[in-house]
Amino acid sequence: MTRAPGSPDKPRVGITIGDPSGIGPEIVLKAAADESVRESCSPVIIGDFAELRRQSNLLGLTADFRSITESEIASKHFTEPVVFDTNSMNTPAKWGEVSAASGRASISAIETCTKLCLTGKLDAMATAPINKESIKLAGSSFPGHTEMLTSLCGAPQSLMCFFAGDLKVFLFTVHTSLSNAITDLTRDKIVSILTLADRELRRFGGSKPRIAVAGLNPHAGEHGLFGLEETNEIAPAIEECRATHDIDVSGPFPADTLFVRAWRGEFDAVAACYHDQGLIAVKCLAFGRAVNVTLGLPIIRTSVDHGTAFDIAGRGIADHQSMVEAILLATRLFRKASSSR
Amino acid sequence: MTRAPGSPDKPRVGITIGDPSGIGPEIVLKAAADESVRESCSPVIIGDFAELRRQSNLLGLTADFRSITESEIASKHFTEPVVFDTNSMNTPAKWGEVSAASGRASISAIETCTKLCLTGKLDAMATAPINKESIKLAGSSFPGHTEMLTSLCGAPQSLMCFFAGDLKVFLFTVHTSLSNAITDLTRDKIVSILTLADRELRRFGGSKPRIAVAGLNPHAGEHGLFGLEETNEIAPAIEECRATHDIDVSGPFPADTLFVRAWRGEFDAVAACYHDQGLIAVKCLAFGRAVNVTLGLPIIRTSVDHGTAFDIAGRGIADHQSMVEAILLATRLFRKASSSR
Repeated sequence: MTRAPGSPDKPRVGITIGDPSGIGPEIVLKAAADESVRESCSPVIIGDFAELRRQSNLLGLTADFRSITESEIASKHFTEPVVFDTNSMNTPAKWGEVSAASGRASISAIETCTKLCLTGKLDAMATAPINKESIKLAGSSFPGHTEMLTSLCGAPQSLMCFFAGDLKVFLFTVHTSLSNAITDLTRDKIVSILTLADRELRRFGGSKPRIAVAGLNPHAGEHGLFGLEETNEIAPAIEECRATHDIDVSGPFPADTLFVRAWRGEFDAVAACYHDQGLIAVKCLAFGRAVNVTLGLPIIRTSVDHGTAFDIAGRGIADHQSMVEAILLATRLFRKASSSR
Repeated sequence: MTRAPGSPDKPRVGITIGDPSGIGPEIVLKAAADESVRESCSPVIIGDFAELRRQSNLLGLTADFRSITESEIASKHFTEPVVFDTNSMNTPAKWGEVSAASGRASISAIETCTKLCLTGKLDAMATAPINKESIKLAGSSFPGHTEMLTSLCGAPQSLMCFFAGDLKVFLFTVHTSLSNAITDLTRDKIVSILTLADRELRRFGGSKPRIAVAGLNPHAGEHGLFGLEETNEIAPAIEECRATHDIDVSGPFPADTLFVRAWRGEFDAVAACYHDQGLIAVKCLAFGRAVNVTLGLPIIRTSVDHGTAFDIAGRGIADHQSMVEAILLATRLFRKASSSR
C-alpha cells in the first residue's frame, strides 16, 4: 500500500460547518482552502458531504475537496482540504430559512467533531455559526455552542473568552439580563471563574497571566458612591484569589479605560462583569479579528465572532476572515498547550 | 489710541484652568500656545494669573501670555495668548494634593468663564479637569462640571455627550450605580433625552441626525429572553419619538456591534443606556481624541476626556492633545451653531 504524502507534524483542526442555511458552509470552504490555514494546519471540515458539494458548486468555489475516513484522519497523512461526512441531510438546505433539518445538521457536526477531538483523532475544533431557533426545532435545549460543548465534554464548568490580538477578555456572566448579571456577580462565582481563567490562560500562554478585573459600576463604584458591588463582592474575590490561589489579578478598575490599558499591554487579560462590557470593548478594539475561545473544556475550541448572516447566505459574498482567524488560533492554542504540558 | 492688531473674526474660547494642583494649568498653557488652536480661535485662559505665571516658570514653558481685561475680551482685538485673571489664590497650589484652596480656584474659573459666555464676551468654553474632593472641601455640592454648569446657566436639563470623530455618543444615565441606571431608564426619561439630543445635534450639525439607541441587555434583550426593558421602555420611547417628535431614531440594537456600525457611518449618534456602555466604546474607538460636550446649555461647553492626573502634576510631561481637541471642537461648534441660527 502506498501512503499519500502526509503532514503528521501539523495539527488537525476540525471545522464544523455551522447552520447550512447560513454562511457557515461558504466561509468554512473558503477558509479551509486559505493558504495561511493550509500552511499552519491540516483542516478537516465536518459536515454533510453532499450538501457541501452542492453549495460549493452553486457558489462557484473552485477549491477541491474529498471525503476522508476516521482512520485516515487518525493517520494524519493528508494535506489537501478534506471533509468528514456526517451524512446528516436528506434534502438540500434552504438559504436564509430556520429549519429543524438545518438544526439537526448543525448539531450533528458539533457532536461528531467533539467526539473526534475527545478521542484524539482531531487536535482542535473551530466552529462556524449556528442558528438558535433551528437547533431548538431539532430538539436541542442548549442556548448555544458553549453550553452544548460543555455538556458533550462532561466539563464541570466552562468560560467564554475572546482573544483579540494579544488581549484576552473573559466574562463573569453571559446570556442573562443585565439585572440578573448584577445579582449573579457573587464573590464565590468570581473566585471560581478567575481560578478557571488563570489555569486555562497558563495552559495556553505558558506563564502566569496578568489579569485585571473591570468594575461593575461607573468609575468602578467611585469608592461606594455609585454602587457597592465592588466593595462587597469583587474586591474580596480578587483579594482571595491573590492570597489563596496565587493568581496575578488586580482591580476592580474603571471599565471605560481598562480595556485600552490592557490593549496597550498593561495586562494580559481582562475579566468583564457582563456580556456587553466585554463585547463592546472587543468589537471596538478588534472588529472581525476577535476569536471566541471556550475555556475549561478538555478539548480546544474556537469560534468566529459573528452569526449565521441569513440575509447574505448563498450570495457568495461572505467574508471568511473571522473563520480563518478562528482556525489559526485553534492551531496556535494546540501548539501552546502541547508545549506547556 | 492705537489698537493692537486684532482678529474679530475668530471665536473667543474661554479655557478654564481646572484644578491648579493637577495638570490643568500645564495643559491649558500648552494648548493655548498650540498653533492649530491659535489659527482657529482666540484663546482666553481663565484662572489665577500669578499661579499660572509661577507654574509656567517652574515647568519651563516658553510661550508668553499677558493679562487681559473684560472689555478687551469684548473688543475681540487680541491675538496672543491671554489670561483673564480670577485672582483666586492666596498661596501657591501644591501639586498632587487635594485642598479647599485649589477647589475654590477651580470653581472661580468655571463661574467666571460661564458668566463671560452668558454675557456674550466669550463665544464658547473648554474646561480642564477638576478634583471632586477639592471642590467639595471648598463648599460645592456639585458632583462635577456638568451639574455645576447646568445650575449656573439655569438650564432645565443637560446631557453628557461625547464627540469622537464624526460619531456622537450620549448617555441616558451617567453617575449612578448600574442597578439604579436600569431603574432610571424609563420611557419618559428616554423620550425627554432623545428630544433634547435631537434638537442640540441639529443645532451643532445643521441637519436631522440619524440616532441609534443601544439595547440595555445582551443582544438587546433577544426578544425578551434576556430582559424586558427593551420591550417595555426603550422601544415604546423610540416609537413615540419617531411618531410624535419627527426624530430619526431607531433601535434598540445589540450594543456590542452598534458602536462599530455607527463609527463606520451608519448613524450620526448613539444613545447609550449607561455610563460604561457609552464610555467603553468611545475610549476604545477614539482614546484621547474624544471630547466631552454638554448639550442643553445656552452656552457651548467642551471638556477634555481625562482627569486631573495628580500623579504626574508638576512634571511637565502631561499630554495636552485632548485639551487642544476640546478647544478646536468648541470653536467648530460655535461656528456651526452660528451658521444654523
